[in-house]
Amino acid sequence: MKVALAQLNYIIGDFEGNCDKMTGAVERAKQAGADLVVFSELSVTGYYPHDLLEKKEFIRMAEETVRRIARSCRGIAAIVGAPRINDNERGKTLYNSAFFLADGKIQSVHNKTLLPTYDVFDEYRHFEPNSEFHVAEYKGERIAVTICEDLWDEQPTANEFGKNKLYRISPMEELAGPNPDFVVNISASPFSYNQENWRKDVLVHKAKKYHIPIVYVNQTGAQTELIFDGGSVFIDAGGEIVKELKYFEEDFLTVDTGNPGDAELQPVTGRIEKIHDALVLGIRDYFGKAGFRQATLGLSGGIDSAITAVLAVEALGAENVRVLLLPSRYSSDHSLEDARQLAENLKIKYDIVPIQEVVDAFEKGLTSLFEGTRQDITEENIQARARGIYLMAISNKFGHILLNTTNKSECAVGYGTLYGDMNGGLAVLGDVYKTDIFRLARFMNREREVIPENTIVKPPSAELRPDQKDTDSLPEYEILDEILFSFIEQNLSPGEIEGKGFDPEVVRKVIRMVNTTEYKRFQAAPILRVSSKAFGFGRKMPLVGRY
Amino acid sequence: MKVALAQLNYIIGDFEGNCDKMTGAVERAKQAGADLVVFSELSVTGYYPHDLLEKKEFIRMAEETVRRIARSCRGIAAIVGAPRINDNERGKTLYNSAFFLADGKIQSVHNKTLLPTYDVFDEYRHFEPNSEFHVAEYKGERIAVTICEDLWDEQPTANEFGKNKLYRISPMEELAGPNPDFVVNISASPFSYNQENWRKDVLVHKAKKYHIPIVYVNQTGAQTELIFDGGSVFIDAGGEIVKELKYFEEDFLTVDTGNPGDAELQPVTGRIEKIHDALVLGIRDYFGKAGFRQATLGLSGGIDSAITAVLAVEALGAENVRVLLLPSRYSSDHSLEDARQLAENLKIKYDIVPIQEVVDAFEKGLTSLFEGTRQDITEENIQARARGIYLMAISNKFGHILLNTTNKSECAVGYGTLYGDMNGGLAVLGDVYKTDIFRLARFMNREREVIPENTIVKPPSAELRPDQKDTDSLPEYEILDEILFSFIEQNLSPGEIEGKGFDPEVVRKVIRMVNTTEYKRFQAAPILRVSSKAFGFGRKMPLVGRY
Repeated sequence: MKVALAQLNYIIGDFEGNCDKMTGAVERAKQAGADLVVFSELSVTGYYPHDLLEKKEFIRMAEETVRRIARSCRGIAAIVGAPRINDNERGKTLYNSAFFLADGKIQSVHNKTLLPTYDVFDEYRHFEPNSEFHVAEYKGERIAVTICEDLWDEQPTANEFGKNKLYRISPMEELAGPNPDFVVNISASPFSYNQENWRKDVLVHKAKKYHIPIVYVNQTGAQTELIFDGGSVFIDAGGEIVKELKYFEEDFLTVDTGNPGDAELQPVTGRIEKIHDALVLGIRDYFGKAGFRQATLGLSGGIDSAITAVLAVEALGAENVRVLLLPSRYSSDHSLEDARQLAENLKIKYDIVPIQEVVDAFEKGLTSLFEGTRQDITEENIQARARGIYLMAISNKFGHILLNTTNKSECAVGYGTLYGDMNGGLAVLGDVYKTDIFRLARFMNREREVIPENTIVKPPSAELRPDQKDTDSLPEYEILDEILFSFIEQNLSPGEIEGKGFDPEVVRKVIRMVNTTEYKRFQAAPILRVSSKAFGFGRKMPLVGRY
Repeated sequence: MKVALAQLNYIIGDFEGNCDKMTGAVERAKQAGADLVVFSELSVTGYYPHDLLEKKEFIRMAEETVRRIARSCRGIAAIVGAPRINDNERGKTLYNSAFFLADGKIQSVHNKTLLPTYDVFDEYRHFEPNSEFHVAEYKGERIAVTICEDLWDEQPTANEFGKNKLYRISPMEELAGPNPDFVVNISASPFSYNQENWRKDVLVHKAKKYHIPIVYVNQTGAQTELIFDGGSVFIDAGGEIVKELKYFEEDFLTVDTGNPGDAELQPVTGRIEKIHDALVLGIRDYFGKAGFRQATLGLSGGIDSAITAVLAVEALGAENVRVLLLPSRYSSDHSLEDARQLAENLKIKYDIVPIQEVVDAFEKGLTSLFEGTRQDITEENIQARARGIYLMAISNKFGHILLNTTNKSECAVGYGTLYGDMNGGLAVLGDVYKTDIFRLARFMNREREVIPENTIVKPPSAELRPDQKDTDSLPEYEILDEILFSFIEQNLSPGEIEGKGFDPEVVRKVIRMVNTTEYKRFQAAPILRVSSKAFGFGRKMPLVGRY
């Protein structure tokens, strides 16, 4: 059968726009001579609509949109993803469904069986798991229609201290019975740099195990924190990936499942380049889908704000990025100079607004209240918050979204001032460890010096007091990041991390810093997710406790 | 059988402290001649530990604590709640379990079948549902051990547009087979003012349906947003509530299930009083469990900050509450006077710090950047943020937690400045509509004028520009709150809300305000939950979308 893979970028709840995109792809597939066009999971609504799924009107509009798309399917079939009301007497209100459309109508519906409810996934909140299995039939072929996680039944549990597999049921075992000609998997699988090959391995394994071709269609585009990387594939019955669609952008391809021809694969890119591409898409879609064009941020002369500015320029264009340089009495000359140099390299508008006067005014207002106390973090925070006010003033006055520049290492240990440098509509680097920040800088400078060399090589400092350096109170970033990765991504205990050879005192200190700063991250901006465990809604920790 | 109901307040992850409390109650029950002492759901860990459940060490410590408590059970049995590793080959790593302890050992384990995964509940994220049923046997009696939701199988789905019941299985149907003598239900059921009788109705219905007594033990105390109200009960086989434990505090009671004696019920209190008690407990436990004693907040002379101050004084004591009065050029004299009067009525320390000088300093710094622009919300936000900086300075310097004073009506429509008056470690009133704020004020003034009358009767205003009133841009609060309740708590569509008789234009405007300010609430402080649908982790909406 000739199948078109339509890898598209959807907007959540934009039924009109998503429908136009999908009927456009139906038309394109028809012209390419395809028998069937396949879209991704919950394509009609965009993935993931969260509690909009609890609104009757939302479900009604999704149903209507499915019927509209069905009407465009004449001489061609389509598989689209949408929620569907559960007609049974018991269970959750909805199924997460794939609709098989042909001859202007819904021909069959296939519900999702395995509902991921871990990390950033929350599907059992809204959906009833499927327990009935049937294949779609079209033009004499039998198609096993599955939805994303349905092929992941053999994965171990997310937290590996049990040895169990996560699911009790194997949809493919059930669907293998009727001996289908090929499998379709409609998916919404977000990017994460430490799972990049896992997805392909799972699909290849299933193709080999059942000796059956798989058509896998993922969505692309960012939905706030989650960045969907596309990379849809066709895998033949021998488990070879024969076709591969682009990463981080829309793509379209037609393949004959019985005779797929030569391999057409995407160029192999490195981990840092993928993170870079993911973040650019994350910024671009956050702005585009929210209806904004312009970003602002503060350039400190440090590496985090420099990286953020470069990404913003790539995502939005230099003409849409405006920065402030906000020196205090502790800012070094070279910091201001490095920041200015970067702004000029990027050709972005910048203004210099010294903050000392407002800081002095605050301190004057507090003189009598602070009598007899010593300078401490309070005064440092006032500087960070004064900068935050200036940046938000630009944001409010000119309609720019403020980009937050905090990296994951800082975010983890709570380095960052709430209502100060933690401000922002989107945290661009909040899932990128500092050691990767340096790698990103080298990647960005691979052709010419965009980020001033001095910004990269100088010792990191918040410059909130004289001669301050990050390493005054933190271990070297190489060590810090390994400890953090062990604790956050790998969920290891302090004892296990010490067992890797780290100083027990340092390990305990770092973990204490992570655990005692949950309250700060609770109020942080949404963080673009690029790892397997980002701060945000995929990692829920009690704010108050004694563990 | 003589059963002790131990209604306790746990700290999440405080295995040592929880264990001491529980073994203390075992001892007390023994002395009261009880055969069995019953604790609440996940009592060993505190409810709810969220992703701490993904940490091996956490589970190991929970197991150890169960065994420690078991060793204290000699001559008496106990039922405690804790997570337990799933030994099966498939499924989630854990069960949410009740352990039946006697003779120094774990005698049997009973796993939770119905795992609430809606609103603030997230149990399927961590737990595998039970599918095997057995009763505990002790001293010749058979006990059907159930966990919270296990008795809620007949509830309709949370979003009522399907007509289905939420669950496929009825644990009581399964457990009724062996003909148990009574039911134990260990629970962690949070307070919400619009579901206060639902819980009792469910229990009474089950007792009547199976003609069986029910021992129901809930936890008390607040865990950040969630406030558990206790109110444990014993219900006889006829469905009569015979014993009822206190609300919003720890309590202990022994009952003979075969011969419960006369009814002992709690005094009936009104809705506003319950909200009041819930909020006081919410503040007290947030501070106490986080290891803080002192609060600060800004008094504007308005009703929201007044209510917050009164609650803080009740929760923490007047000596632990310190406020700032932060007048700007738009603050009216009466506001400052009302605020001062309230501080004096409450006998709390207050300082007056005028903000005009710092606001002027900011505006001076922005002069050239803002050339040619008009005054707008930017300048109003600078005032709110300057106040935020002063309050956070007190918080940082003296170790006070800043209390946020935003009410639910404001929070819903996005009235409030991010990094300004939205600052705070805990949002005390974020789940209380403005119309209820006025009722709370009347309740607080029932004996003497604590809150100045003028604060209650004057038209609400943010005082961020001359003669500003809330009703300049919002409908009257009576109307606004009804629209908001219909949209947020009842999940009605705009059409359905208009059908109640509201002006369609006003309805559309209010809903648009709610939908377009998700990004603000995303960064809001944790909100004490008192309703059936609070902002926070029980209501997840996409930040970016077109719906």
